[in-house]
Amino acid sequence: MAGSIFGKNIKISTWGESHGRALGVVVDGFPAGMELFENDVQKFLDRRKPGTSAATTSRKEGDEVEILSGIFEGKTTGTPISMMVKNTSQRSGDYSEIAGYYRPGHADFGFDEKFGFRDYRGGGRSSGRETIGRVAAGALCSKLLNEMGIKVMAFTRAIGDVEIDEKKFDEKNILLTPTAMPDAEADKRAMELISKCKEEMDSVGGVVECHVTGLPAGVGEPVFDKLDAVIAHAVMSIGAVKAVEIGDGTRVSKYKGSENNDEFVMRDSSVEKQTNHAGGILGGISDGSEIVFRVYFKPTPSIAKTQNTVNKSGENIQVSIHGRHDPVVVPRAVVVVESMCALCTLDLLMSNMLSRAENIIGFYKK
Amino acid sequence: MAGSIFGKNIKISTWGESHGRALGVVVDGFPAGMELFENDVQKFLDRRKPGTSAATTSRKEGDEVEILSGIFEGKTTGTPISMMVKNTSQRSGDYSEIAGYYRPGHADFGFDEKFGFRDYRGGGRSSGRETIGRVAAGALCSKLLNEMGIKVMAFTRAIGDVEIDEKKFDEKNILLTPTAMPDAEADKRAMELISKCKEEMDSVGGVVECHVTGLPAGVGEPVFDKLDAVIAHAVMSIGAVKAVEIGDGTRVSKYKGSENNDEFVMRDSSVEKQTNHAGGILGGISDGSEIVFRVYFKPTPSIAKTQNTVNKSGENIQVSIHGRHDPVVVPRAVVVVESMCALCTLDLLMSNMLSRAENIIGFYKK
Amino acid sequence: MAGSIFGKNIKISTWGESHGRALGVVVDGFPAGMELFENDVQKFLDRRKPGTSAATTSRKEGDEVEILSGIFEGKTTGTPISMMVKNTSQRSGDYSEIAGYYRPGHADFGFDEKFGFRDYRGGGRSSGRETIGRVAAGALCSKLLNEMGIKVMAFTRAIGDVEIDEKKFDEKNILLTPTAMPDAEADKRAMELISKCKEEMDSVGGVVECHVTGLPAGVGEPVFDKLDAVIAHAVMSIGAVKAVEIGDGTRVSKYKGSENNDEFVMRDSSVEKQTNHAGGILGGISDGSEIVFRVYFKPTPSIAKTQNTVNKSGENIQVSIHGRHDPVVVPRAVVVVESMCALCTLDLLMSNMLSRAENIIGFYKK
Amino acid sequence: MAGSIFGKNIKISTWGESHGRALGVVVDGFPAGMELFENDVQKFLDRRKPGTSAATTSRKEGDEVEILSGIFEGKTTGTPISMMVKNTSQRSGDYSEIAGYYRPGHADFGFDEKFGFRDYRGGGRSSGRETIGRVAAGALCSKLLNEMGIKVMAFTRAIGDVEIDEKKFDEKNILLTPTAMPDAEADKRAMELISKCKEEMDSVGGVVECHVTGLPAGVGEPVFDKLDAVIAHAVMSIGAVKAVEIGDGTRVSKYKGSENNDEFVMRDSSVEKQTNHAGGILGGISDGSEIVFRVYFKPTPSIAKTQNTVNKSGENIQVSIHGRHDPVVVPRAVVVVESMCALCTLDLLMSNMLSRAENIIGFYKK
Repeated sequence: MAGSIFGKNIKISTWGESHGRALGVVVDGFPAGMELFENDVQKFLDRRKPGTSAATTSRKEGDEVEILSGIFEGKTTGTPISMMVKNTSQRSGDYSEIAGYYRPGHADFGFDEKFGFRDYRGGGRSSGRETIGRVAAGALCSKLLNEMGIKVMAFTRAIGDVEIDEKKFDEKNILLTPTAMPDAEADKRAMELISKCKEEMDSVGGVVECHVTGLPAGVGEPVFDKLDAVIAHAVMSIGAVKAVEIGDGTRVSKYKGSENNDEFVMRDSSVEKQTNHAGGILGGISDGSEIVFRVYFKPTPSIAKTQNTVNKSGENIQVSIHGRHDPVVVPRAVVVVESMCALCTLDLLMSNMLSRAENIIGFYKK
Repeated sequence: MAGSIFGKNIKISTWGESHGRALGVVVDGFPAGMELFENDVQKFLDRRKPGTSAATTSRKEGDEVEILSGIFEGKTTGTPISMMVKNTSQRSGDYSEIAGYYRPGHADFGFDEKFGFRDYRGGGRSSGRETIGRVAAGALCSKLLNEMGIKVMAFTRAIGDVEIDEKKFDEKNILLTPTAMPDAEADKRAMELISKCKEEMDSVGGVVECHVTGLPAGVGEPVFDKLDAVIAHAVMSIGAVKAVEIGDGTRVSKYKGSENNDEFVMRDSSVEKQTNHAGGILGGISDGSEIVFRVYFKPTPSIAKTQNTVNKSGENIQVSIHGRHDPVVVPRAVVVVESMCALCTLDLLMSNMLSRAENIIGFYKK
Repeated sequence: MAGSIFGKNIKISTWGESHGRALGVVVDGFPAGMELFENDVQKFLDRRKPGTSAATTSRKEGDEVEILSGIFEGKTTGTPISMMVKNTSQRSGDYSEIAGYYRPGHADFGFDEKFGFRDYRGGGRSSGRETIGRVAAGALCSKLLNEMGIKVMAFTRAIGDVEIDEKKFDEKNILLTPTAMPDAEADKRAMELISKCKEEMDSVGGVVECHVTGLPAGVGEPVFDKLDAVIAHAVMSIGAVKAVEIGDGTRVSKYKGSENNDEFVMRDSSVEKQTNHAGGILGGISDGSEIVFRVYFKPTPSIAKTQNTVNKSGENIQVSIHGRHDPVVVPRAVVVVESMCALCTLDLLMSNMLSRAENIIGFYKK
Repeated sequence: MAGSIFGKNIKISTWGESHGRALGVVVDGFPAGMELFENDVQKFLDRRKPGTSAATTSRKEGDEVEILSGIFEGKTTGTPISMMVKNTSQRSGDYSEIAGYYRPGHADFGFDEKFGFRDYRGGGRSSGRETIGRVAAGALCSKLLNEMGIKVMAFTRAIGDVEIDEKKFDEKNILLTPTAMPDAEADKRAMELISKCKEEMDSVGGVVECHVTGLPAGVGEPVFDKLDAVIAHAVMSIGAVKAVEIGDGTRVSKYKGSENNDEFVMRDSSVEKQTNHAGGILGGISDGSEIVFRVYFKPTPSIAKTQNTVNKSGENIQVSIHGRHDPVVVPRAVVVVESMCALCTLDLLMSNMLSRAENIIGFYKK
């Protein structure tokens, strides 16, 4: 079953392996008439590019996007937008050794069981480079959301046990700090932790948080295509994610109803909420307040520290995985979470336009 | 956009409102030739039936399933299986008051914004009764999984701050305790907590955990239809769920790679893992060990305690929601989680049969 | 793979067998706020009801629809609309004989090869009664289209070699003549042909034509979801259909380009076409003129005339199929074609609302 | 709504415009382990390449395919296969004139109404070059079908009023004659007709026929995803197609049941049919005999002959469309029909593997 296509009104079809010729995405169903230049996409891709700091791998990638279709005279045409990034820095030699064994924490064994063999170079399809297609598509969706006054913003909330202090939240830091933390002090401590991990030939996990502001109430479909359910699918499908929580998330299991319920109140003739434990989603539908969710990433599984594992001949062996690996995936994953969220949000905004008979009749009467 | 259909190879299409004539599900794509009797489904439905203990609402529902199609001479025919439960205990009068205001913690406001109005009786489509269709479908999927030696088992892990002690885990208690806890002692404490909540006209949240045993490695598709991503979608779409975690879940964000990686080892000529921090899923594909995930539920939003909210005329008001509400949704949600998990698991097992050209060629050669 | 769900924005999920308890449909994604009463659906179902004339089977069916969900205070709620028709006239005894052999012209053999066995009573899922769900859903779609000033009208164009004379086209005859022909004289000759077929224990084929008026230009998606491609899928999926043609259809293969091209012309400040060889669809997109297509039905395969076939024991046998069979399926199929067309048209009208970025931005700015 | 994705188990996502940078396809869900080289795809693409004879446009295109992903060590990996053909022969200048008016027989007007503007160069997304992605995907599907002993073969049945004589059918001529006719004599007459059309600055239509041999009984899903319905969708979505018929097609409407029914007979212990009016499909499911269908193409709408039309300023004008246009699309469309048929056939063969519970249980028991 095809598993590399996501979305309903807008469908993204991603492709490519870490060490293949190129990676990319086809975005089908994106509406016509939005200005789009390669630079709009490049800015997003640059946020997931490695090699910019000690927090990331030293692998240098140009990761320059080419838009191959779906744009005419600087605008989207309504037909599929195909975007490609060529792989220029593949060093297949780096990976020849891992062909013969199953790396702990990786999908190697599952791939072999499923498909009979695998492209073992750099993780193949399960590489972090797979997210290039997601981010390119996310750039488009974010741009259109921005034109509607809706903003998706993700950032690093925590790396290991270093968490940001919300009082020191400064949005511009997200793009300035190597960890994508909005709190510059936490960033420094996190960088120290990362250095320590590298020294110890180890890696560490972290948390990405994402906010959507400006989203009207009513977005998300009852039952299976709830806004939070679709977001959970989207972000859990990012490699290394092990948990997703909306609003107060896991903590709500210990709350009383009277603590957890957000009371409604009239403010300037509009319905608002006094608190936002719900993270902006009630019954799967946006309630007009800020959407808030968090995504938990495991530590990079490729570590230089010695590990026990097995090889394809069925022998127990010891391995030490060298190569250009991020000690933590979180800083580069921030834009991936933001991209997947933008896609889900725009997709459900489009569905929501079709919720009322009067809107359909009205559209065609004009 | 249609939002009440879920699944790929097996698609379930659920329908019905809390106080409509009936609720049900159409299961399309279920394979032919499995024995199925109404009692197979009824047993599952009985597990979500209210009125069996102090932990649940006193609303009495027969919730008797009728299988309307797709079965011939006691076997599934391969064509859609339509199942229906009639609503017999609707008391619309109970709910007339809430028509005019937005209940805190409920989807009322979102529904009105989305559709222009709503069926306010008992939550309408957003009622917990919506899960009847899910559970009826889950019963079918679980039965087929069982015939393959695969078992899905969910249970209550925690209610409020009362958590089970894994050392006291006794599977048979899941069906015997009112809380669906496998630890009878924790169950007692949880029941006390629930009583206290009722006295305080309040409610409480909790955690459901789910295990899948016997699942071979290789199940789940790379990228968007990862096993964990599909499960996350499925369980996050259950009303009141605010977080989902796979394996060690949120905790992995603080782990080092060397702590989190599960080492592979040869055992009786097969590849196994020494630990299972991953919850049985690596890179979105099952790794042959037990699947483990947890689902966090918020407290029932309908509480008798006085709350502030607004009415449809835009006035700030105070409300106290009476009616037959569970003080905690978790015990009845256990079978819902189990059902959604069974559906996802079977669906991806089917997809996985199509992963290799040799299997397709082999199938048609025989 | 699930095969009983159709549509994108509006998805219909049909279920039921000829001799099961009931048949029905769940319509997911239908917009909220349209008035709907059971009688709106019943009127459509009555047009496919047998037993009303010599042109149809003498099997008497009440075929009374029950709407089980998705309606509140006389209006669609935006949530799934479940509709059911109980089978009241099953005489399983009629069919016991055919259990053991493969009826020529029927899917019996294919079903056994596919599923291992089949519900042989009255054709099971492959019975014409399967279309009840389609027609119930079509009634809803037609109603909403009518409110938008769009009208779908199907009629019998030919039965055997008796074809209507377009000069004698009188729309009201479609509902008055037993053949659903708009030409009363052709109807008489067709009825004579049908009588002759019955005498000869034989059956005959025919042609249904369908028009859509009032459809704006721009509906239909480029490439795979062309308006004509989706309609072709929808009507070819009706049992007994063997050909579909749009506009001048098969004849265009002999045309010159200069004959076939419809010239554009300005008329009252709007772009119109001088002719309509294209049947209102160019490049898969509506061009603002009338949509015209024809659907070719084979003769009813169940005939009393002696036929050679084989039984499940692998013996060559002779059979004569008795029972309550229409000598021609076309008159009752008219409303099925109309229903499938209405569904496709509404679905693509909804998709088309999402074609332009400016419309999405505009929708949320208001 | 995304309209450039087709298929269920195997999904193809095509992209590209006539005069964009490139065109291509992403094939998601193709099974792992099949040998695949670029030349397998190139051979198919060469069959739709222009400039090889008087029957086709003089536009020279290399149309060389690059496989960008999904292949490792000469085999499909089970992950998305991305294929691209660069546009090397765009002469945008050719088309600048047509930007301002609506070409008769083309989708220009519909595109403008739908999207607000269009890429007018060479038809943009509605160009025949859009089929490059379909053919590249079809090459893969055909190869796997061949390995299963299933063969899809399409050919030109007629051009204008020149039809092949079945007695002179010689399969190897399909690849040798400029018209792709299997009857060399008919080919000569067709070429004369084409020459005459060119002289008259006109074009002509034609018919493609397609056969599938070796397909087992049981393929195709009851109700909406009937084998013939899916094929009808697939081929009606090819530009310029106006009719599709299965088996005896339109003619069955005049048949008696006793003429049309194919009698079953035992032959060498297997169930066969004496005749094949049904074209190998009964009730939407393959019956084990040859699949036969025909596709009717309209004449190329771009003709040099003077035509009346309107421009975007709302003026009636006269136009004469020059450029590199095929006088008939049929010869190059043969491989497109074959490709779409191969995709549908393989997709439904895969679905059919999931039809029986015993097969699923059996798969995982081994």
